[in-house]
Amino acid sequence: MAEIGNSVAVLGTGALGGFYGGLLAQAKYDVHFLVRSDYEQLREQGLRVDSPLGDFHVQRPHVYRQAADMPAVDLVMVCWKTTSNAALAAALEPLMKANTTVLVLQNGWDVERTAVDAVGGQHVVGGCCFLCSNRIGPGHIHHLDYGAIACGEYQTGDGLTPRLQALQAMFQRANIDLRPSADLRLVRWKKLVWNIPFNGLSVLLSSDTRQLLEDSSAAALAHELMEEVREIAAANSTEIDEGHIEKMLADTRKMVPYDSSMLVDFRAGRPMEVESIFGNPLRAGLAAGYHARKIEMLYQALSYLDREHSGSSM
Amino acid sequence: MAEIGNSVAVLGTGALGGFYGGLLAQAKYDVHFLVRSDYEQLREQGLRVDSPLGDFHVQRPHVYRQAADMPAVDLVMVCWKTTSNAALAAALEPLMKANTTVLVLQNGWDVERTAVDAVGGQHVVGGCCFLCSNRIGPGHIHHLDYGAIACGEYQTGDGLTPRLQALQAMFQRANIDLRPSADLRLVRWKKLVWNIPFNGLSVLLSSDTRQLLEDSSAAALAHELMEEVREIAAANSTEIDEGHIEKMLADTRKMVPYDSSMLVDFRAGRPMEVESIFGNPLRAGLAAGYHARKIEMLYQALSYLDREHSGSSM
Repeated sequence: MAEIGNSVAVLGTGALGGFYGGLLAQAKYDVHFLVRSDYEQLREQGLRVDSPLGDFHVQRPHVYRQAADMPAVDLVMVCWKTTSNAALAAALEPLMKANTTVLVLQNGWDVERTAVDAVGGQHVVGGCCFLCSNRIGPGHIHHLDYGAIACGEYQTGDGLTPRLQALQAMFQRANIDLRPSADLRLVRWKKLVWNIPFNGLSVLLSSDTRQLLEDSSAAALAHELMEEVREIAAANSTEIDEGHIEKMLADTRKMVPYDSSMLVDFRAGRPMEVESIFGNPLRAGLAAGYHARKIEMLYQALSYLDREHSGSSM
Repeated sequence: MAEIGNSVAVLGTGALGGFYGGLLAQAKYDVHFLVRSDYEQLREQGLRVDSPLGDFHVQRPHVYRQAADMPAVDLVMVCWKTTSNAALAAALEPLMKANTTVLVLQNGWDVERTAVDAVGGQHVVGGCCFLCSNRIGPGHIHHLDYGAIACGEYQTGDGLTPRLQALQAMFQRANIDLRPSADLRLVRWKKLVWNIPFNGLSVLLSSDTRQLLEDSSAAALAHELMEEVREIAAANSTEIDEGHIEKMLADTRKMVPYDSSMLVDFRAGRPMEVESIFGNPLRAGLAAGYHARKIEMLYQALSYLDREHSGSSM
């Protein structure tokens, strides 16, 4: 079996990168964190993760303010939001070796594009995280629930490669449930079936998942948005079965009431991932001849809110 | 020429009823106001209207807590919101004479239905007000701008009746610009071309008209919603020319930044006219074979906000 190697760079040490990077560091991988706001805190007091699986503390993480100071590594995990991707190509450059894998763990459609353009598709694996986790303070992550990563080769024709199996084994040693898939596109569309209605409507209607699903109009709208995602995927040759939508709705009804990460960003005045989660899927539909009108309206409304109200609405 | 008569009942003495009823009282018509919240104030201190056309004060208006105490009149003006229409049939009953005209000045589509069912279509005239006016305190109205009323017979086949001309003459004596139309439906659809995007988006995006029109995404969405209203009207045999939409957009760009009455209601925790302004037009489209998807999404979102957030969002 292929081996990934021992060294890891984590780009973005927030709710996602702090959690997965912390687990990998706990498992004795050589993890290097690129950090923006929490640098001093992480250097002096380490990385704290509170989790129902057991709290832990990475005492002396390798932290960096800029990628140019970091070593080349075997695995790069892209954990920051797509709204920071303008900095990605320059950050990747010093981290790459001949066989480096770049694991893009961002939300949305076509989010691997920037990495692919920078380093070539053969280096890139895309993944979707099923994780409830928040950054609750500098260098302090609160993991609430879940944590699996579904991932696949960007070059979909490659299928279930030895690299994916090696990633699975590597993450297993850190207690991370990484699930290789032969079809990254299917993984992404199935995740978007959730993200588009629940990230979008949570911001537009200033509501958590339970409030939305308990109201007949909002629940019907969420369901229709899911169907539009399914239509976009179908127009792009990816079939999502109707059972997936029913399961997502049923699972979300069972969840604790949850403020989506996009609602958290909006309320905090941070930019929202409007292009990757709404704009790119909409355009993928239009390019394939399908006009998702309600997703388009959500995209228009969120684009406006992102520009006009971010940080001032609450 | 037909005469309407001298006696008027005004149902709902807010921004609309207070303004028009006040002008009619000033012109010595015998005006009777049905009042809910401001009864004591109106009885003791009269009705004040501040207006760029000249402030005035109706010192001793005839005010009533219930319609049963009011006289039968020649003209009834329905000025409260459609959300109060459950009380309309009972209120009309004591006010009717053989030739009473009921002038329904509410926003939306099919808003005359309740009056028609109660008293018969031959009594009913519908009208749209182009008025910027607010109730700024008990018995105190602030008129900002405009004030014309476009109206027509509910029984559209009747055309430009002598009754409409008599209404025009009557209102002219009170300095109210009432414009008879042979086609009430066209009047209503043309008004909805404005109300649907600007009432709806102002609430959904918590914004005034200028903010919406200065943003490319929000302005594009407003334009598309206007086009959907035009499609619904066309499916119902009413042609609105494209120039009307361009004119509405241009006029609104020239207006002072304006918080729609629906946004004012929403922020105050009052019910919004979701069914008359969004639900009824949507259903009129569906019944004629046209599915207005963005209006439907607006209707779904506002129905949710009306139930979930009214009064708590600011």
